[in-house]
Amino acid sequence: MTRMSIRCAHPTRTINCSGFLALLFVFLLCEHSTAAAAETQPQLNLMPMPSTVQIGTGQLPIDRSFSFSITGFHDGTLERGVRRFVAELSQQTGILLKQEPAEPANPSLLIHAEHASEAVQGLGEDESYELVVNGSGAKLSAPNTVGILHGLQTFLQLVEPTPNGFAVPVVTIKDQPRFVWRGLLIDVGRHFIPVDVLKRNLDGMAAVKMNVLHLHLSDNEGFRVESKRFPKLQGMGSDGLYYTQDDIREFVAYARDRGIRVVPEFDIPGHSRSWFVGYPELASTPGPYKIEPDGADSVIDPTREGTYKFLDDFIGEMAKVFPDAYFHIGGDEVNGQAWDANPKIQAFIHAHGMKDNQDLQAYFNQRLLKILTKYRKIMIGWDEVLHPDLPKNVVVQSWRGQQSLATAARLGYSGLLSFGYYLDLMWPAWRHYAVDPTTDDAATLNPEEKSRILGGEACMWSEWVTGENIDSRVWPRTAAIAERLWSPQEVQDISSMYSRLNELNWRLEWLGLTHRSGRTHMLHRILGMDDISALRTLADVVEPVKDYMRMDSVKGPWDFRAPLNRLVDAVSPESEPARRFRNLVDAYIQSGYKDRATENEIRTLLAAWRDNDAKLHPFMEQSFLLHELVPLSEDLSVLGAAGLQALDYLDRSELSPESWKAQQLTLIERARTPRADLLLMVATPVERLVEATSRQTQKP
Amino acid sequence: MTRMSIRCAHPTRTINCSGFLALLFVFLLCEHSTAAAAETQPQLNLMPMPSTVQIGTGQLPIDRSFSFSITGFHDGTLERGVRRFVAELSQQTGILLKQEPAEPANPSLLIHAEHASEAVQGLGEDESYELVVNGSGAKLSAPNTVGILHGLQTFLQLVEPTPNGFAVPVVTIKDQPRFVWRGLLIDVGRHFIPVDVLKRNLDGMAAVKMNVLHLHLSDNEGFRVESKRFPKLQGMGSDGLYYTQDDIREFVAYARDRGIRVVPEFDIPGHSRSWFVGYPELASTPGPYKIEPDGADSVIDPTREGTYKFLDDFIGEMAKVFPDAYFHIGGDEVNGQAWDANPKIQAFIHAHGMKDNQDLQAYFNQRLLKILTKYRKIMIGWDEVLHPDLPKNVVVQSWRGQQSLATAARLGYSGLLSFGYYLDLMWPAWRHYAVDPTTDDAATLNPEEKSRILGGEACMWSEWVTGENIDSRVWPRTAAIAERLWSPQEVQDISSMYSRLNELNWRLEWLGLTHRSGRTHMLHRILGMDDISALRTLADVVEPVKDYMRMDSVKGPWDFRAPLNRLVDAVSPESEPARRFRNLVDAYIQSGYKDRATENEIRTLLAAWRDNDAKLHPFMEQSFLLHELVPLSEDLSVLGAAGLQALDYLDRSELSPESWKAQQLTLIERARTPRADLLLMVATPVERLVEATSRQTQKP
Repeated sequence: MTRMSIRCAHPTRTINCSGFLALLFVFLLCEHSTAAAAETQPQLNLMPMPSTVQIGTGQLPIDRSFSFSITGFHDGTLERGVRRFVAELSQQTGILLKQEPAEPANPSLLIHAEHASEAVQGLGEDESYELVVNGSGAKLSAPNTVGILHGLQTFLQLVEPTPNGFAVPVVTIKDQPRFVWRGLLIDVGRHFIPVDVLKRNLDGMAAVKMNVLHLHLSDNEGFRVESKRFPKLQGMGSDGLYYTQDDIREFVAYARDRGIRVVPEFDIPGHSRSWFVGYPELASTPGPYKIEPDGADSVIDPTREGTYKFLDDFIGEMAKVFPDAYFHIGGDEVNGQAWDANPKIQAFIHAHGMKDNQDLQAYFNQRLLKILTKYRKIMIGWDEVLHPDLPKNVVVQSWRGQQSLATAARLGYSGLLSFGYYLDLMWPAWRHYAVDPTTDDAATLNPEEKSRILGGEACMWSEWVTGENIDSRVWPRTAAIAERLWSPQEVQDISSMYSRLNELNWRLEWLGLTHRSGRTHMLHRILGMDDISALRTLADVVEPVKDYMRMDSVKGPWDFRAPLNRLVDAVSPESEPARRFRNLVDAYIQSGYKDRATENEIRTLLAAWRDNDAKLHPFMEQSFLLHELVPLSEDLSVLGAAGLQALDYLDRSELSPESWKAQQLTLIERARTPRADLLLMVATPVERLVEATSRQTQKP
Repeated sequence: MTRMSIRCAHPTRTINCSGFLALLFVFLLCEHSTAAAAETQPQLNLMPMPSTVQIGTGQLPIDRSFSFSITGFHDGTLERGVRRFVAELSQQTGILLKQEPAEPANPSLLIHAEHASEAVQGLGEDESYELVVNGSGAKLSAPNTVGILHGLQTFLQLVEPTPNGFAVPVVTIKDQPRFVWRGLLIDVGRHFIPVDVLKRNLDGMAAVKMNVLHLHLSDNEGFRVESKRFPKLQGMGSDGLYYTQDDIREFVAYARDRGIRVVPEFDIPGHSRSWFVGYPELASTPGPYKIEPDGADSVIDPTREGTYKFLDDFIGEMAKVFPDAYFHIGGDEVNGQAWDANPKIQAFIHAHGMKDNQDLQAYFNQRLLKILTKYRKIMIGWDEVLHPDLPKNVVVQSWRGQQSLATAARLGYSGLLSFGYYLDLMWPAWRHYAVDPTTDDAATLNPEEKSRILGGEACMWSEWVTGENIDSRVWPRTAAIAERLWSPQEVQDISSMYSRLNELNWRLEWLGLTHRSGRTHMLHRILGMDDISALRTLADVVEPVKDYMRMDSVKGPWDFRAPLNRLVDAVSPESEPARRFRNLVDAYIQSGYKDRATENEIRTLLAAWRDNDAKLHPFMEQSFLLHELVPLSEDLSVLGAAGLQALDYLDRSELSPESWKAQQLTLIERARTPRADLLLMVATPVERLVEATSRQTQKP
């Protein structure tokens, strides 16, 4: 499920591209056709959008007299959840609110849960809630604690400043998730992600009602959990950065308090070089091993009985540390080279009447399954584990696409979609948003088969992230995926999604996430001075290259120890200023070049870009981190100038000379070249302006 | 030492004002005369400026091969300090550095301490260090751990991006503090400040080599430490927000690890309403009491023996929790009303042959001193405790001025200056920077007397701060005070100070301080939407009203429970954009209106202000928090327009009509009116432009 195999799997990649173009077309149509509707109909800034929302008139004021009471069931989880709610409401309003519940007579918010949630949060747990707000009070009710937690998040999103103070609109919301599994995978193997960073991401997940954090805990570059039974796993198989078992316990409790399960993944038999540093006897090829990249294939030897003894002990230990019913064994990308090269392994295949390496992996999985069953864990694995011999409660997580999901569902297996939700590919939010677990190949499933699709997971593979910039890769785009997995399938309006996402975006920073502010810190570091305005102007309109282009540009083997301190590491995966600029240009063109206010906005931006290189250039020589940005900065100025000239032609209703236009298009094409692993995201709208100068006849 | 008495003490206030005008004059002279020199002579971005700095040629690269070793003495404090240093260096460069020390052969940085620091950090501890950097390595040596911690901070400040990578310049620094007591007082009584906020402020203090955190732990509005002996102190005397003894212990250890002492203050006999909520028998006037404001004077009854039994038990308990040798008993602002009103107390005064209430407070302090001595604590108190009967090791902290310090020093007492360092008065950094503990009345002391002045403390009184905005009131201005207390007295260049302060400013945010980013969060909340650009334009050029003007504008009694969520709570105490604008205008005028580049910069700013009200106005009605800003926003537009018109006259070398000028000056005068407790800080430079239009003859 990582880059290596997509690189090998060219067909998949091609499908990606054509699919992307089709989607892009749909996107361009959608965003504009719906813009007008969205403007006239005021909507609530809720994300994910609830199942049903009925807006009334009036509002419930939130002021210092705000009170709450809890009736019905309550336990520690509920009480802590309510305490956090009050703290967040205090922060959202700047009003110090009463921390203790009031008498149930006439509280501002009455909270009523029927019963407890399960001790260990389960897959089928009822997550529904009902929130009724009228002018004098609100009532939040749910079958259990998790539903209450979701409802409190909805309440927080409803709070807004009004002419008379902070308030929540009168509204009735009945809500429940579309899918039971709404996850975020964080790869802590390739780069360690500190506990406090995970915690604030859990807070973000809770805000958008996600319920599974999937931790990819081991990979070639690092083994990230303390094993007391096999201490060389983390001791030699990491750079010293790993979670202690106490960390994990605290962390799992933190997640549970937010209605989130923690699913561990130990990726075997491939992706396991870090295991072999301390325990080379587990490997299919002779050691010694180190975690630093050496280009060798590292796969567990599934033919040794000692392997299973080790795994039994290890899984037994981890089964206690991670209470969740599911246990992810990875199982992806075993390319077979290491097994091919080992005569003993090939002899084993022959001796046991197996056809090939695939059969050997199936054998390995069967043995693994017995161990997991012994410790009462349900197996999950990536697409490759799918084999008809496995029992039907095994869950298949698909990085390959809905086709794998459909195949699995027809065979009776449950599945999760991650294809299309890879955050490391730097796609815009709308593109993830358009991916649905039950469309494409899965659309033809019958209802029973379809019900086997449990949901999906956003995936944050960490080749290019550390604790410093991970927030900006996860947020806010993950919120769009969260909505896809929670809200009714017909919630599809991209314009509405972006409008709500942008509101949620800054609210998420109140939780301690640094997806916006972290960029500022990094720009200061890159420039080494106080005034970062010129660098910010450039950073605002670039995005990291997409898909696996950055990995493709690495010279030599990728090294997880390389600094991630370049502009590409700081900028947002999706440029909101560039998106706004595209929309402005489209609106201006659609107005028949008449909309003066919009034209002025466009001119202001273009002029700032045109003049920016002169401001930034003097500093480019002073910092080695800025050198690589020289052509990018120059091209942004060129785009600014080209756009301004185009507007001049359009203003004068004058056709542009062919030679001028051809020259501009050449320059724009150059500006589209990725440089420093960055893309200038305003080249295309400027091109549209230049193209328009030769279509003056269209102007009324 | 709080607002109440400055209100009463009009003479002091008058002295403040005339002193301020004199300083302003000096400031205006200084900042411009030194600007040119600062530009031509590149300086190191060090703050506080070390005693001696010798800059060489070349640099020491900081890359992935960076290593360090520790020779000589080392203990846990040193090792943790070095680990933090490596983590911060990693963050400053984005390079994952080796966490473990290397062999001492050829490390990038050799660290050598002679011996341990004292178990409980003492007043006279040697804080000196020597840092020698050459092209192949650096050596940091110090007599003890605290010196090493200071030297590591200097090293971090030296790291900058260069054309070839991150590097530290070749330099030799020998450094030691001017004063032994360089403190920050945080008032956690009026508003509770959470532990994590205190911790990040300790990190900020360590970055600028401050060594005392003075916690004002009790006041009328709250008692903030858990007493196990008298649990009603925190139980009834707070809104539930206080530090447990475990919090304190952890916190003191955290401070100690950073070379910072924690000095507790329990303010008695005045400022003590919160004590009386649970223990009304301690009060001079009958209860019942509550922490909510009621206007009554609340003073301990010093005539009851039970009072001393209580204080003995209480201080005995606290003496164990706070290991520092010093114990602050407050002692300020006992106005005597409560004692006058109690016949028993007046009878006691007569019976013991005392003259007045002052004598009674001296008696109270004598009794208190015995208790403190019993628990081996040295007494500190505010100016009012000064009484010739007290032993000479008592320390006087002066909120009244250098005169108190000088008087105390002549009598043989040690002293600390806090007058002039009150952060809550919202002064600009240069004004605090100009205050020196040994000038004014203290200038005439002989060397021995002068040596009794131990240093000073910046004071963050918390009437108008919470954990949310305290960072922005403390930083970066406290760094200027830290430099005054650490660096040689002749370090006075305001221009250099601001230049270095601005670099330090963003680096401080890397420590987790939110003095810059917190404003953004608050502007989003106030506006309730994503695009805060128009509100930010206004927020950039306003400052909170100065001195006690905000308190003076409160209708009814000040209530600590009121929300602090207005623009005045969000904006910086000192507007850096306004300061820059003033400098631009001055440079333009000094150029004889010839400097076109500067004029263009001024025009861009003025145009943005002129146009801003039109952008902000549509939102003013949507949020109750914006209503009060309407006139301010209008005035900013007026200033922008006036400035632009003035520039037009100057461009045309045309004298402005008297009527136009008179009208503009009236408008500018209006724009100077405080509104919403805010001041528009660009009125005066715009006035200078308008005034210039009638002096065209000066133009060459």
